[in-house]
Amino acid sequence: MPITSDSTVAEVLDDYGKITRAELKNWLPKGDPEDYLYGPMSDYPMRGGRMFRPSLCIATAKVFGASLEQVIPAAVSIELLHNALLIHDDIEDESDERRGKPTLHKKIGTPLALNAGDSLAFLSLRPIIRGSASMGSDSIVRILEEFDQMAQQTAEGQALDLGWRRDNHIELCEADYLKMVLKKTCWLTTLFPIRLGALIGSGGRANLDSLFNFAFFLGAAFQIQDDVLNLIGNHERYGKELGGDLLEGKRTLMLVNLLELSSSSERVRIKAILDTPRDARSDASVSWLRSAMIERGCIEYAKELAHGLAGAASHEFDKTFKELPESSDKAFLSKLPSWVIERS
Amino acid sequence: MPITSDSTVAEVLDDYGKITRAELKNWLPKGDPEDYLYGPMSDYPMRGGRMFRPSLCIATAKVFGASLEQVIPAAVSIELLHNALLIHDDIEDESDERRGKPTLHKKIGTPLALNAGDSLAFLSLRPIIRGSASMGSDSIVRILEEFDQMAQQTAEGQALDLGWRRDNHIELCEADYLKMVLKKTCWLTTLFPIRLGALIGSGGRANLDSLFNFAFFLGAAFQIQDDVLNLIGNHERYGKELGGDLLEGKRTLMLVNLLELSSSSERVRIKAILDTPRDARSDASVSWLRSAMIERGCIEYAKELAHGLAGAASHEFDKTFKELPESSDKAFLSKLPSWVIERS
Repeated sequence: MPITSDSTVAEVLDDYGKITRAELKNWLPKGDPEDYLYGPMSDYPMRGGRMFRPSLCIATAKVFGASLEQVIPAAVSIELLHNALLIHDDIEDESDERRGKPTLHKKIGTPLALNAGDSLAFLSLRPIIRGSASMGSDSIVRILEEFDQMAQQTAEGQALDLGWRRDNHIELCEADYLKMVLKKTCWLTTLFPIRLGALIGSGGRANLDSLFNFAFFLGAAFQIQDDVLNLIGNHERYGKELGGDLLEGKRTLMLVNLLELSSSSERVRIKAILDTPRDARSDASVSWLRSAMIERGCIEYAKELAHGLAGAASHEFDKTFKELPESSDKAFLSKLPSWVIERS
Repeated sequence: MPITSDSTVAEVLDDYGKITRAELKNWLPKGDPEDYLYGPMSDYPMRGGRMFRPSLCIATAKVFGASLEQVIPAAVSIELLHNALLIHDDIEDESDERRGKPTLHKKIGTPLALNAGDSLAFLSLRPIIRGSASMGSDSIVRILEEFDQMAQQTAEGQALDLGWRRDNHIELCEADYLKMVLKKTCWLTTLFPIRLGALIGSGGRANLDSLFNFAFFLGAAFQIQDDVLNLIGNHERYGKELGGDLLEGKRTLMLVNLLELSSSSERVRIKAILDTPRDARSDASVSWLRSAMIERGCIEYAKELAHGLAGAASHEFDKTFKELPESSDKAFLSKLPSWVIERS
């Protein structure tokens, strides 16, 4: 069924996701060493996933004037890099599950998983480089500089997330949380796909910085919804262990909000729970944390903030994209703010 | 003191090393998050190191006609990537020491070290991309494809090394060892620096594949000498824990040779020692392994093979570089085969 302006977000994700995945398979090397490298590199990309990032890049590029063929290499690069970083994130977070199955390092051990992630990260540059080879050196350099900026911002965000947890840092406010999310989530999830799409679609003429607000609000709403789903989602559809963020001590919006609302004695208790090594953290203390978040309205608060951010993203979209011609891709983009907060 | 044809290898490494390190410092980002990211990223590059890889690239490029300025960005990229991969190698190998100090993950924990390695790996592309921006798209793409090829080969070699150890695989012969070394060591240590130097120096006209034998023989001799030094070197000068390879169960040339010379009952004993988790491996069993390698002449054998490879590298150098003009850089390259097997 061809995509039209009436297509749902799920339908477009399914369509662009299939196209991206079919092309992505061609970029995954085969052969030796199969068990130690190329099998593990293909594992996460072949598990599925929503394909939100590549679809966002494809739709943006087409809105700005690209053909599907022109933007596919960029979409493949984004999805490959996302999967590479998931492998490393799962090691860093000691996560057990990814897309409904054991994480890669649980399956094959940390050393081989780390190496497969490295190889997939370098591979992620290949489609974008080959795809832009005919564009002239200015375009190649601009595209690679976009990639470079995103990689640096993502590493900064990941460093904040990991560092705050390592040091059991609890003096955090909502602004700290949003700064972390901007870097850790938004650059790879929304800013880079949108900027790269606009760059490719416009042949370098679009003002990429004007797209910042839409991308940031959309990405932040996406991450907060993810925080919420981790706590109260449907395990089968979510694909990760529920409450994993609590076990991993992640600085989610709910946790930051709970800390802000807590008395100093409660903060001491929360800090002690977070300080317990993951394996030693009792079910009772995790349940207490979850209940406190519910009782204090932290989950409701997170949902409201995600709602507000999605509304702001919608507003920014209308403002920024108003001069661009109507199309099924523009309709898809306009529906994303609602979708990110409604998805389960 | 200016470099001349009479300069020793150590003098040239010192000179090119200082130049590369001074420039490298300018590429290391500063600012927040300092403790969680930018400090850790600067740690290994600032610990020193021989600067063999960047010096090899600089000298080759100059022999092929480049100015020092033209090749410095490539030299910096190589050294940055080398340091990034050292961080990840140390995690994968659970190593304790690097350049005479605790490994990065021992200092700051695996999650932050892994992330700093990722960030340094992406950063390593920055000098090479900026440095080649004025060269035209064909040159940029060729340089990036060289980088890509090296990264893939290196990951394959690392996968073999790690996979063989994880599965306690002992059915290995010298050809398996040399294949692993070609991929794991030679691509990043000699092939890429030499190919990239020749590419930049010749403006894309050099036949890079003709340099394969020199680079491979040089790199293999380098790795075998490293295996030997790990076992019988001077700890202070070597900078890593002596015998670390034995503790980590690495498939060194001496181990492969010992396995080839052993009876089936001895192989059972060796396999059992290698199968013991690192922390549980007794000093007595490690001593036995070391003694067996000495008694069976495995260390002598490794030294002889390194010697033979260095001789072959010299021969290949004379053949491949004979048409290129004499210079202090050419003299430096000609001395490298002897240097790699004589260094302590």
